Amino acid sequence: MKGIFITVEGSEGSGKTSLIQGLLPLLAERSNALVMTTREPGGIPLAERIRDIILDLQSEEMDEKTESLLFAASRREHLVKKILPALEEGKLIIADRFVDSSLAYQGVGRGLGIETIAALNAFVTEGLEPDLTLYLDLKPKEGLARIQQNRANEVNRLDLLGLKFHQKVHVGYLKIAKENPQRVVVINAQQALAKVIADCFEVIIHRFPKLFKEKSSDNLK
Amino acid sequence: MKGIFITVEGSEGSGKTSLIQGLLPLLAERSNALVMTTREPGGIPLAERIRDIILDLQSEEMDEKTESLLFAASRREHLVKKILPALEEGKLIIADRFVDSSLAYQGVGRGLGIETIAALNAFVTEGLEPDLTLYLDLKPKEGLARIQQNRANEVNRLDLLGLKFHQKVHVGYLKIAKENPQRVVVINAQQALAKVIADCFEVIIHRFPKLFKEKSSDNLK
Repeated sequence: MKGIFITVEGSEGSGKTSLIQGLLPLLAERSNALVMTTREPGGIPLAERIRDIILDLQSEEMDEKTESLLFAASRREHLVKKILPALEEGKLIIADRFVDSSLAYQGVGRGLGIETIAALNAFVTEGLEPDLTLYLDLKPKEGLARIQQNRANEVNRLDLLGLKFHQKVHVGYLKIAKENPQRVVVINAQQALAKVIADCFEVIIHRFPKLFKEKSSDNLK
Repeated sequence: MKGIFITVEGSEGSGKTSLIQGLLPLLAERSNALVMTTREPGGIPLAERIRDIILDLQSEEMDEKTESLLFAASRREHLVKKILPALEEGKLIIADRFVDSSLAYQGVGRGLGIETIAALNAFVTEGLEPDLTLYLDLKPKEGLARIQQNRANEVNRLDLLGLKFHQKVHVGYLKIAKENPQRVVVINAQQALAKVIADCFEVIIHRFPKLFKEKSSDNLK
């Protein structure tokens, strides 16, 4: 693969979307990368249809393993139709959520086990891992408070699961970060958004210096 | 589990539906079992929605792993909501297709590998296996000819895959039968339907004699 694959992870309300919106102009201005941002289901019609089933409030009684399988199916389609082609084209991809979300939400939050969900997702990814994962760490209470403040009227099934569930998800994310220190960088998301963006940008510069080579020398002129 | 779980497997046109329709009155009359017939998605609304996505002709370009994950999701919901409760109630379940279909179609037909698809389905079934599988063995050419003869106008995506694919599926089924001689009984589906039904009924009587105990003594009066 010629491109670079960065994922942004974190609980509800941790600021993933705002971070990505903030990183995009910085990367466009200061790096020489062709940047593509995406999030599952990523505008892939088939993945959208699967996602509709998962988030539908009427699916409230869905079995937890069914949910995991549907997330995996949606991810597979998004991966094959959007992420892999972009990597082949040498793009820098920033994805809002990927496999770690399933490990934290279904593996730990739902209690199906990280190893079990990792095995299921290995079928999906065939070993492809992000080059870098930015994990926005935030106390679950803080995250839920932010959601309730910001959200106008769109509430989906997974938001309704409450604090206890989100606390488990938080434990899951910390475990994943601890077990993948090379790949996952923990970012303090309690900080002001500008500081979160600056921290993440620093990590990217440090991790992929080649992306900034030509542009940096331009700046020195 | 208190019930008995029988699956009927075979390629397109092998006569699974006709067999089950023929077995039902025989079992109702001569056994003391409460019989339930089913087939995925089994009238489970969520499983129906998933199935709609799989069979939709517009999904023609669906990735093969996505297809496998969607079949698994639909199966999980059908299993949890319909098959397991019926087994708990002590019923005799006759299911038109189950895991073996995925092993033969996705594992061998699509070339994803029997072991890979078996591992995916172990996540779904948690080790539950049919007590008996009746495999209706038919030459793929014969099966396809029967479909084209019988089918009025309903053609789904999987029917369009052609002879080569169905030949692989056939090889897959024979492999599964060979590797599971205790569970899978191969029935010659080239025979007249009445003979196929009689053969299968004999297998059931032989395998589950207790089901026929009281009724048989009634018949001897």
